[in-house]
Amino acid sequence: MGIHTYFRSLNEMERIYRCPGKFKFEEHTVAAHSWKVVQYAKTLADIEEMHGTAVNWKKLYEITSSHDYGEIFIGDIKTPVKHSSMELRSLIQQVEEGMVHHFINEHIPEEFRPIFFNQLREGKDQSVEGLILEVADKLDQVYEAFAEMQRGNTEKEFVKMYREALVKIKNIPLACVDYFLKNILPDMVNEESLSPIDIKRITEEALSQ
Amino acid sequence: MGIHTYFRSLNEMERIYRCPGKFKFEEHTVAAHSWKVVQYAKTLADIEEMHGTAVNWKKLYEITSSHDYGEIFIGDIKTPVKHSSMELRSLIQQVEEGMVHHFINEHIPEEFRPIFFNQLREGKDQSVEGLILEVADKLDQVYEAFAEMQRGNTEKEFVKMYREALVKIKNIPLACVDYFLKNILPDMVNEESLSPIDIKRITEEALSQ
Amino acid sequence: MGIHTYFRSLNEMERIYRCPGKFKFEEHTVAAHSWKVVQYAKTLADIEEMHGTAVNWKKLYEITSSHDYGEIFIGDIKTPVKHSSMELRSLIQQVEEGMVHHFINEHIPEEFRPIFFNQLREGKDQSVEGLILEVADKLDQVYEAFAEMQRGNTEKEFVKMYREALVKIKNIPLACVDYFLKNILPDMVNEESLSPIDIKRITEEALSQ
Amino acid sequence: MGIHTYFRSLNEMERIYRCPGKFKFEEHTVAAHSWKVVQYAKTLADIEEMHGTAVNWKKLYEITSSHDYGEIFIGDIKTPVKHSSMELRSLIQQVEEGMVHHFINEHIPEEFRPIFFNQLREGKDQSVEGLILEVADKLDQVYEAFAEMQRGNTEKEFVKMYREALVKIKNIPLACVDYFLKNILPDMVNEESLSPIDIKRITEEALSQ
Amino acid sequence: MGIHTYFRSLNEMERIYRCPGKFKFEEHTVAAHSWKVVQYAKTLADIEEMHGTAVNWKKLYEITSSHDYGEIFIGDIKTPVKHSSMELRSLIQQVEEGMVHHFINEHIPEEFRPIFFNQLREGKDQSVEGLILEVADKLDQVYEAFAEMQRGNTEKEFVKMYREALVKIKNIPLACVDYFLKNILPDMVNEESLSPIDIKRITEEALSQ
Amino acid sequence: MGIHTYFRSLNEMERIYRCPGKFKFEEHTVAAHSWKVVQYAKTLADIEEMHGTAVNWKKLYEITSSHDYGEIFIGDIKTPVKHSSMELRSLIQQVEEGMVHHFINEHIPEEFRPIFFNQLREGKDQSVEGLILEVADKLDQVYEAFAEMQRGNTEKEFVKMYREALVKIKNIPLACVDYFLKNILPDMVNEESLSPIDIKRITEEALSQ
Repeated sequence: MGIHTYFRSLNEMERIYRCPGKFKFEEHTVAAHSWKVVQYAKTLADIEEMHGTAVNWKKLYEITSSHDYGEIFIGDIKTPVKHSSMELRSLIQQVEEGMVHHFINEHIPEEFRPIFFNQLREGKDQSVEGLILEVADKLDQVYEAFAEMQRGNTEKEFVKMYREALVKIKNIPLACVDYFLKNILPDMVNEESLSPIDIKRITEEALSQ
Repeated sequence: MGIHTYFRSLNEMERIYRCPGKFKFEEHTVAAHSWKVVQYAKTLADIEEMHGTAVNWKKLYEITSSHDYGEIFIGDIKTPVKHSSMELRSLIQQVEEGMVHHFINEHIPEEFRPIFFNQLREGKDQSVEGLILEVADKLDQVYEAFAEMQRGNTEKEFVKMYREALVKIKNIPLACVDYFLKNILPDMVNEESLSPIDIKRITEEALSQ
Repeated sequence: MGIHTYFRSLNEMERIYRCPGKFKFEEHTVAAHSWKVVQYAKTLADIEEMHGTAVNWKKLYEITSSHDYGEIFIGDIKTPVKHSSMELRSLIQQVEEGMVHHFINEHIPEEFRPIFFNQLREGKDQSVEGLILEVADKLDQVYEAFAEMQRGNTEKEFVKMYREALVKIKNIPLACVDYFLKNILPDMVNEESLSPIDIKRITEEALSQ
Repeated sequence: MGIHTYFRSLNEMERIYRCPGKFKFEEHTVAAHSWKVVQYAKTLADIEEMHGTAVNWKKLYEITSSHDYGEIFIGDIKTPVKHSSMELRSLIQQVEEGMVHHFINEHIPEEFRPIFFNQLREGKDQSVEGLILEVADKLDQVYEAFAEMQRGNTEKEFVKMYREALVKIKNIPLACVDYFLKNILPDMVNEESLSPIDIKRITEEALSQ
Repeated sequence: MGIHTYFRSLNEMERIYRCPGKFKFEEHTVAAHSWKVVQYAKTLADIEEMHGTAVNWKKLYEITSSHDYGEIFIGDIKTPVKHSSMELRSLIQQVEEGMVHHFINEHIPEEFRPIFFNQLREGKDQSVEGLILEVADKLDQVYEAFAEMQRGNTEKEFVKMYREALVKIKNIPLACVDYFLKNILPDMVNEESLSPIDIKRITEEALSQ
Repeated sequence: MGIHTYFRSLNEMERIYRCPGKFKFEEHTVAAHSWKVVQYAKTLADIEEMHGTAVNWKKLYEITSSHDYGEIFIGDIKTPVKHSSMELRSLIQQVEEGMVHHFINEHIPEEFRPIFFNQLREGKDQSVEGLILEVADKLDQVYEAFAEMQRGNTEKEFVKMYREALVKIKNIPLACVDYFLKNILPDMVNEESLSPIDIKRITEEALSQ
């Protein structure tokens, strides 16, 4: 019936938890994750600008803040499921897009529809802004997994999450990625840890991929 | 490496929450839901036996207690997604079955594999036991949705959950369904309620479908 | 007033927590515990059958799924209290049985009463099914206590719980106990652990009792 | 090994929840309850002093702050169980006293033992201080049950808790009880409420007992 | 020692709860609130652009996403305290700014300091972006307070929060405020509600200020 | 409108959490903290009496149980803020006192006002009771911080809290402080710990200040 339905729905993101099922010392909601991605992306974009790259801030704003909104419609589908077949992955994406379209057509007033179609689309394209979003999203995975391992969580899933996110980040050709690898990651890895897991070795192995 | 991996994994069902995203006065884990389904099914099967139907208790035990175990592998995929296309639904089911197979082959010792393949299959077939499981599973949906509405939760989703579960139950040709509709549901509907929603009217409308 | 009161009461088991008072990294409800006991018992019974023992699956179903239902009436009385005197223990058991009887007579329709009296009785007798229930119940104590110790919980209570459950299990004359001791327990004990407690030594000591 | 064991144990009272099992909008720990009883008792004793009664503040301090400490040893035994037979009640009290004695003898240095035996005894005797403790303890039951009913909780248990606590309070011959009934209770009963339960009528009925 | 300290600190915003002390059906973290403010501001800025106003998206991004970051340093100081005297308010603001300055000088590398000084300043100035932030921040207060009242929360504080936020919003001279008052607020006020409070009357009264 | 408003407000202390923002294995409410301070103070006063010091138990009761009540009005202002300038500290204290005065004048009946003004004042003066309160309050900080470090929490804040509380305690000239340092603290420091932090060294360093 209007923008109210959309504003009200944002509240649901406060009740969807990331990585369901696994033991965690600390839970993270999708809303809080989205905010941290917005914050990382801002600093990452600042680094890009310092290296002379032009950043479209409006686009960056739109795609980072809304990047997980689709989870309201399709729920939390585990990554291994999505990756199990190209056919399934493409079908799931079609369904998500269909549901977002349906929501916009049903609830958003006509004059706003083009804006919402644009904002709620999948933002991770090959533009600078799309790549920054990809780095920021993986960065939060790195931070969440690291904090669990550091406190002694021995679930294999967090080692995998940490390693895979690092591999994804290091292959993205941005100045902010270089900065992260040289100036941020070492500070993280050098923090005190209870982990029986050798985080340094896993980090080095991932970066050598 | 063995049954230990399976036993340990059961713990994950204590951390997967039903119906993520929606506001609820009370959260339910998949483990707790599974236990309640086991309990309902026991009484429903007692009613069937009282009406002269033979029940295979071993089969009933196996399929009710394990009926949501697959969620460990594929996560909580929202019902509307599963129902959005027959093609997607069938693909998701294939993926889930593939993951369960892979788990069994990787972790369960050879002599137990046939038993596990049998127990972790989708149990909702047209046998008496499969139908009892279907009733018991929907019954918990009725109880969960009713308790939310009764306490004044006005989320439309719970009205829909309640109504759809009732429609599903009433079309299952079992003596225990007759018993439920005549002797259990009226006691529920007559409880005190804060709801601005007219639960009696919704119940009657669903039963007249 | 009928089965509805019983079905509705199941929900209370989702809100009773095990081992109240002690610091835990993870809480367990009696509902979730009950479901895990059902699952363990199923596999333990499969092992018995593989060794040629006949299992009454209906009985096993009834006694495992309902084995802690009495806690709704008497609450969580600590084990040391129950064990403090034979006289007290017997009185508490009488009170629990009296309350279960009263509940059945007040709420369960006449035709179901014999079934409910049978199902809600204490199930841990010397039959195969009673012994399997005893093993499954202690097994969950082992898993819960182990997971706490593994994550570094140093509360003495968990060492005691783990040790006493192991001693109980090992003295039960079932094929599934042999299987557990030879094929499941070693996998558990060999997992990575933060614990300053020597779990292996405690395990060996308990098994040599 | 000393006072440290006692100080550390206080922490357990933060993890024991009152009235386990029942649906509540708000949980209360035994530690928080104990603090509120201390606060109520202080004001109740002020009222007694204003009416010319001498109050032994040291005794009042000791018995109110420690009045539920025994729950650490015996757990939360439901009131109906305690009241089910005089014999059981007396046995449970003997067990609790035995465990408190054992704790003091094992952990408290000899010079403190008489003080601890005195402080951790059951404080609800017929002295002014014992009666004030009784009123304060029941007052918290009134406040907890009222807040649940006011928010629309329809569990019968809270009606019963509220009513029984009022009946207990009104029969205690203290000036502070008169003050409570005339000046505090009416303000509570006149607050806005969602409850389909007629709290005023229940209050009047209880006071006319 | 660098950006890592800043990135890691974001996590603290997930553990700071809004409006501490009051009974709430639903808790909100400052991280989730910050994300919702980012989302509201995006749509509000779209409305401004549709009415021909130029929006500096980089500035809007920076000030909305970081607008409550200072709470990490000074904690949650209640609004009545801040408003109790001009002198205190100005001193608290000086302290917050001093702590942010100190954090930046201690942890942020020199080349980033000007950017951080700019981003972590108080953003609610009289620019279009500053005013949009003010509207978005108050809008979340409206949504949070409305949802509590709608579910039957009778704490006076939420009536006050709702009313004061509406009065603040309606006096801000932006096209998006007109849009909110005409097209969003009526949909909210017309939702079903358990509240004994007359939300419509409070809304009308606030808008007539 | 009377004592009811005060009694009801106590409930808010159950919902205010200590040390907001920092990662903790265990949360503590201000209500639970207040109760533990009451308990420590009782034993500390017993020790003083054993050494021949007269204790005013009524005063001790009043100031320990109410010592954090003011947080209801001003919220949780972080220690570094309070300590950042003498001017700010004195202003905040004036505001808190003003709010407490306003509350008493608005809600407490005239005949109780002198008592409430007395009880809700800042109690940490140089009297024996004021000093015991100071020790008890810091003791809880020591216990809370120690339990976090012991479980492997590496947040620097808890090291700081632990160390600063110890320094404060050791400089207070009471017999109970000597007792604590000689007979209680060593038992604590000798407990098993996961911490990579050298708690013993920090303790010795603090005691040598």
